[in-house]
Amino acid sequence: MDISESLKKRYLTIQNNRLANVFKVQDEIVSSIRAFLKGEGFTEILAPIIGPVTDPGIRGARQATIDYYGVPFKVMSSMILYKQMIITALPKVFALSPNIRLEPLETVRTRRHLTEFRQIDLEVAYATCDEVMDLGERMLCQVIVDVKAKCHKELGERCKTLRVPTRPFKRYTYKEALEVLKGIGMSVKYGEEIPWEAEEAISNVHAEPFWITNYPVTARSFYYMESEKNPGVLEDFDLIYPEGFGEAVSGGRRENRYEKLVERMRRSGEDPSQYGWYLDMLKVGIPPSAGFGIGVERLTRFICGLENIWDAVPFPKVAGVLSP
Amino acid sequence: MDISESLKKRYLTIQNNRLANVFKVQDEIVSSIRAFLKGEGFTEILAPIIGPVTDPGIRGARQATIDYYGVPFKVMSSMILYKQMIITALPKVFALSPNIRLEPLETVRTRRHLTEFRQIDLEVAYATCDEVMDLGERMLCQVIVDVKAKCHKELGERCKTLRVPTRPFKRYTYKEALEVLKGIGMSVKYGEEIPWEAEEAISNVHAEPFWITNYPVTARSFYYMESEKNPGVLEDFDLIYPEGFGEAVSGGRRENRYEKLVERMRRSGEDPSQYGWYLDMLKVGIPPSAGFGIGVERLTRFICGLENIWDAVPFPKVAGVLSP
Repeated sequence: MDISESLKKRYLTIQNNRLANVFKVQDEIVSSIRAFLKGEGFTEILAPIIGPVTDPGIRGARQATIDYYGVPFKVMSSMILYKQMIITALPKVFALSPNIRLEPLETVRTRRHLTEFRQIDLEVAYATCDEVMDLGERMLCQVIVDVKAKCHKELGERCKTLRVPTRPFKRYTYKEALEVLKGIGMSVKYGEEIPWEAEEAISNVHAEPFWITNYPVTARSFYYMESEKNPGVLEDFDLIYPEGFGEAVSGGRRENRYEKLVERMRRSGEDPSQYGWYLDMLKVGIPPSAGFGIGVERLTRFICGLENIWDAVPFPKVAGVLSP
Repeated sequence: MDISESLKKRYLTIQNNRLANVFKVQDEIVSSIRAFLKGEGFTEILAPIIGPVTDPGIRGARQATIDYYGVPFKVMSSMILYKQMIITALPKVFALSPNIRLEPLETVRTRRHLTEFRQIDLEVAYATCDEVMDLGERMLCQVIVDVKAKCHKELGERCKTLRVPTRPFKRYTYKEALEVLKGIGMSVKYGEEIPWEAEEAISNVHAEPFWITNYPVTARSFYYMESEKNPGVLEDFDLIYPEGFGEAVSGGRRENRYEKLVERMRRSGEDPSQYGWYLDMLKVGIPPSAGFGIGVERLTRFICGLENIWDAVPFPKVAGVLSP
């Protein structure tokens, strides 16, 4: 069966015992993250699914729209705007947030893009990037320790090659990452997002997870804080898995100042009038914060050592494929 | 502020300390359910969000539709069809499943309908109704024990009035429930769904949760098993909270026989040609099963003793209101 046929007949392929093992490991991954974050004082909340606006920073994917009592509502592409609301009530929160992103058809080839996926999405009021990056490192290490201890049977051979990473993880700025890429023959123009092929290439030449920080303002969405001492550059970060598995985490400090945010929206080509409640909220005032989202299926793919992201979820949705 | 204004300005009302306490109790409710179900041998899986078809049995609400690469896809109104798929891989599963149901505008008045809500949705291969009802009773009692023990401060006065129910819970058949309703002056015609007002009325005259079983085939959707020894009646059940809080749980045994199911679809006015993968799956064969969904926001409303369901979720969506 080709990929598309195999996904359409998921009711047959799902009965493969290898997949049942992946789902059991995934359950342990999410349980481990929950236990870790609760130990750090986080409250788990229920993620929003639909709303008048959602995250526009989704790298060439389209948002999904429903008719909500005569008005177009979006299905969440990420809950970032809502995280900035909830931290006014609870200072440390996370949610298992389902996201829909209608990715370009060619993303089937990357083997790491789903059109429906989940993030463990967390936010901390008044936190710095360093604080949430440290949290992310400890969280990933704890998950790997827990999974190796509890899912030895389900992981099989992968249990031997999956190592607990050394902390602190290596850090490159975006600028330094472009130099590393140049060294392996991949040219990325300063100011642009690092494309999937380049991300996979830099991931391939690492044996441990590493950070890429301080993306240029032009490469990312309006909600990341611009550096005071280094204008044009963001206080943000991605975590990249080793061994070619690519992006794990995206996060950063958030812009919480109304005027600055409207200016950033305009610079990134967004129409502020589309962001009614969000801008009204910023006018009233919210605290600064930092946080990140870690993709659950990509983490499962990395931990289980899977070639294809569609084996890391019971009911996979891949660009252009009309599967269950 | 009226309800609509208050919901549109959720970024203000969310800062009420009473709500933060509700969200903390909700976190404990969901954690308690997870711990209980894992102790019973369940695996938690990731719920689907979109798909070609979803549950049509949603009592007068409309489904939400997105354009998925040129084809209409539904946002899940419930994951029932997918539960019948996953039990072929894992015999005891549950998921925290977000559902969208575009309810009629008048449901704002019931104070217990959201257009976006979550169920803990579980399914057990080869189980009977009695087995999953017993599981549901033990689960609800355990949640109340845990919440009373761990959320004394957040529950406040409600901690005194919230009692652990006596097991086994009282059971009425649908037919008997109609008699009880008649006794309190509410007339429901045999064969119809029990309307919201009647459900609230029968809930109001009970001090403990109770079951209503064996609804007539005409009142419910095609996926419930019809009784062999009592044709025209289903092997299904609802759990109703006491004190006017209304419906808690819906569940039953599932029809898994292809011919019977197509016949049931036809009788209930569904077009079998719309259910491509689902009917293909039934043709191949799946085991019989039983399961139920318990609404997370309604359980939170009952446990916290809230008047309004929209206080039982961080980002509430209510029929016709364009809130964040």
